[in-house]
Amino acid sequence: MSIDLKTECRRFVPGHPPQKPGEEFALIADYCRENNFGADYYGAGDLINSFEQKVVGLLGFEAACFMPSGTMAQQIALKVYEGKSNNQNFAIHPTSHLELHEQHAYAHLCNLKSVIVGDKNRPLKALDIENSKTVFSTVITELPARELGGQLPTWKELKAFKKTAKKRGVSLHMDGARLWETGAFYRKSYRKICEGFDSVYVSFYKGVGALTGAMLLGGANFIEESRIWLRRFGGNLFQLHPFVASAARRFDFAIEQMPKYSERTKEVYAVLKNIEGISFCPNPPQVNMFHLYFDAPAEKLTEARNKIAEQNKIWMANSFQTTALENLGSTEIYVGEGLLQIDDDELEKTFLKLVRLAKL
Amino acid sequence: MSIDLKTECRRFVPGHPPQKPGEEFALIADYCRENNFGADYYGAGDLINSFEQKVVGLLGFEAACFMPSGTMAQQIALKVYEGKSNNQNFAIHPTSHLELHEQHAYAHLCNLKSVIVGDKNRPLKALDIENSKTVFSTVITELPARELGGQLPTWKELKAFKKTAKKRGVSLHMDGARLWETGAFYRKSYRKICEGFDSVYVSFYKGVGALTGAMLLGGANFIEESRIWLRRFGGNLFQLHPFVASAARRFDFAIEQMPKYSERTKEVYAVLKNIEGISFCPNPPQVNMFHLYFDAPAEKLTEARNKIAEQNKIWMANSFQTTALENLGSTEIYVGEGLLQIDDDELEKTFLKLVRLAKL
Repeated sequence: MSIDLKTECRRFVPGHPPQKPGEEFALIADYCRENNFGADYYGAGDLINSFEQKVVGLLGFEAACFMPSGTMAQQIALKVYEGKSNNQNFAIHPTSHLELHEQHAYAHLCNLKSVIVGDKNRPLKALDIENSKTVFSTVITELPARELGGQLPTWKELKAFKKTAKKRGVSLHMDGARLWETGAFYRKSYRKICEGFDSVYVSFYKGVGALTGAMLLGGANFIEESRIWLRRFGGNLFQLHPFVASAARRFDFAIEQMPKYSERTKEVYAVLKNIEGISFCPNPPQVNMFHLYFDAPAEKLTEARNKIAEQNKIWMANSFQTTALENLGSTEIYVGEGLLQIDDDELEKTFLKLVRLAKL
Repeated sequence: MSIDLKTECRRFVPGHPPQKPGEEFALIADYCRENNFGADYYGAGDLINSFEQKVVGLLGFEAACFMPSGTMAQQIALKVYEGKSNNQNFAIHPTSHLELHEQHAYAHLCNLKSVIVGDKNRPLKALDIENSKTVFSTVITELPARELGGQLPTWKELKAFKKTAKKRGVSLHMDGARLWETGAFYRKSYRKICEGFDSVYVSFYKGVGALTGAMLLGGANFIEESRIWLRRFGGNLFQLHPFVASAARRFDFAIEQMPKYSERTKEVYAVLKNIEGISFCPNPPQVNMFHLYFDAPAEKLTEARNKIAEQNKIWMANSFQTTALENLGSTEIYVGEGLLQIDDDELEKTFLKLVRLAKL
C-alpha cells in the first residue's frame, strides 16, 4: 500500500523522485545507441573500461574495477590486504556497514575478524587506531558516516587519521559509498580527499541515482588482484552494462548537482530547525544527508506520512525508525532532486502538518 | 578487430545473433511499461517474485531466489549444505565450473574442499560417488556437462545417481546452467528431471539469451538461508530488475524454442558429419550444444573464421581452443536462433570453406 501511495505522489522529500516503470531502461537504451556502447563481456568493453578510467582520473588512483555491490567491493579489498599482511584482523567503526548490514560476511564468508574502534556516536579519529592494542591489516573509515547522519571528521582530523594509519603501517580503505557528498563540506577536490587512502569504494545508486553498482579503486596491483577475488565472489558478471550505462549516463550531472544539494541543505535546515518537535543529527547537517528526529513514535509518523501522501501528494520519508525512546522516531533525509522541487513555504507547512498529525 | 568483424556479420553459427547497442534495454523498457513492473528493492518486487514463482512451478521446488551469477549461487548452496552437515567436503566432476573457472573460490573464499570424482571424459555416474572413500556433504552434477560438449548421463544412469546420493545421505545439487537444453534429450518434463535433487541452479543468459542472471531453487528453508548468504556475497543488489526483466521477457519463448534447437542439431549433424577434417564430441550430439574438432590448428581456424566473416558475413565461432595435438583445434557450437537462420547448403559450403582455409 505505501508503495502505491509513493507512486502517486508528485513531490518527494528524500532523495531523487522515483522513475516510472521502464523509464531508466529507455534512457540507457538511447545512451548506448547514441554512443555505440555494445554489451560488455565479463567486465571488458568500451563502456565499462572508459567509465572506470573516468573515475580513476577524478579520484586520483592508478586503477579501478566496476563491481555489482559495495558489500562485495569492500570484502574484496579486505581479502587483498589480508593476503598482503597475512593478518586476518581489520579495524572498523561500530556503525560500519560491514558490522551492521552484511550478516557478518567478513567472518562467515571471508574468515576475517573485526576490531571495533571508536565511539558509535562520532566519526573515527586518529586516536581510535593509535590506541588499539590489537594489530590489524586494514582500517576502514566511512566518509561521510551514514549511520551518524552523514557526519565527517574535520579536515584536520582526517589528515591526522591518514597520518596515523600510515605510521602504523596498516592499509587505509575508505567506505566512500557517499564520497560524492563530501566535496562541498571540505571544499577540496575528490582527489585531495582520497589522497593518502590505499583504496576507496564508491557507489553509484545513492547520490548518483543509477540503477545499482559500485567501484573499487586503488593501486594497479591491488585492482589486478581484486579482479581475481571478484570472480571468486561471483561478481564478474557476464554483463554489467545496464548498471554501468545507468551510472555513466548520470555521472557528470550528479557530480555537478552536489554543490546545489549542499546549498539546499542549508536552506532546508533554516526552515526546519525552528519547528518544535524536530531535531537534527548532526546539528547543523554537514553534508546533504542527515537524520531528523521527531517527538513522536515511528508508527504515528508513518501514519502521518501516509495521510500527507494521500491528501497532499507529498512523500515525506521512505521509512521511520524507532529509537531507544518510545516517543522518538527518526528518518534519514537525502537532499537531492526531490527537495530542489519543493519550495520553503510548502516544506515548512508540510513538516508542521507531519508533526501535528503524528502527535495526535 | 574480431569484435568489429562479428558485428558486421549477418549470419551467426554459434548461439543467438548479437543485439545492437541498447536494443535489449529498449525491449525491457517496453516490457516493464506494458506490465507496470517498477524497480525491485533488494530482491523484493512483483517482477522478481513472480518470475521466481514461475520457475518454481516449472521445476517443482518449494522456493527460488534470483541471483546475479551461478558462481555465487553454487557456492551459496555449498555453504548451506556445509552448515547443515558440518562437513567442508563436496564432490565434483574434474571438469566442473567450480574446479576450472572460479579461481578456486570454494577454497579461497568459502573454506570448502573439493573431492574430485569421476572420469574427466564422461559424465558422473553413481559408481563415482559410491566408490569414494571420503565423506562429503554434497555432490554436484552438471546437466548437461559443458566441458564434455553437452554430454548427459542416460536416464537410467541419472536415476541410479539420484538413488546413490540419497542412500549415501549427501545433498544432491544440480549445476543446471544449461538445464533448459536437457528436456528434448530425456523427453521428460523439467520437473521430472529435477526430481530427487535437493537444489538446482539455472542460468538465464546462455540458452535463454537474457542479459545476465541465475536462479537457485530448493526447499523453503534452504532458500531462506541462501538469501542470508546472498547478502554475505554482496549479491543482494539494490536492484536486479534489468536482469530479471530480460530473463522474464524471454523465458517462455526460449523454452518453446528448445525442441526446435534440438531438431536443428540433428540436421546440422547430418550436414557436418561427413565433412573431412571435422569430428564431433559427443558423436552424435546429445543436446543442442556440442564441440567440434578440426584437423587444423586453432590459430589457423581463427584466421579462416575472420576471412569468412569478411567475405561472407557469416560468423562461424566465437573462439577456437587449442588441444593436446598441435594440429587439432576445437570450438563449442550452441544451436540456437543463429543456426535456425542458416540453411543446410550454406552451412555445408561455409564449413567446407573453413576447413579448406584453415588447412592452407
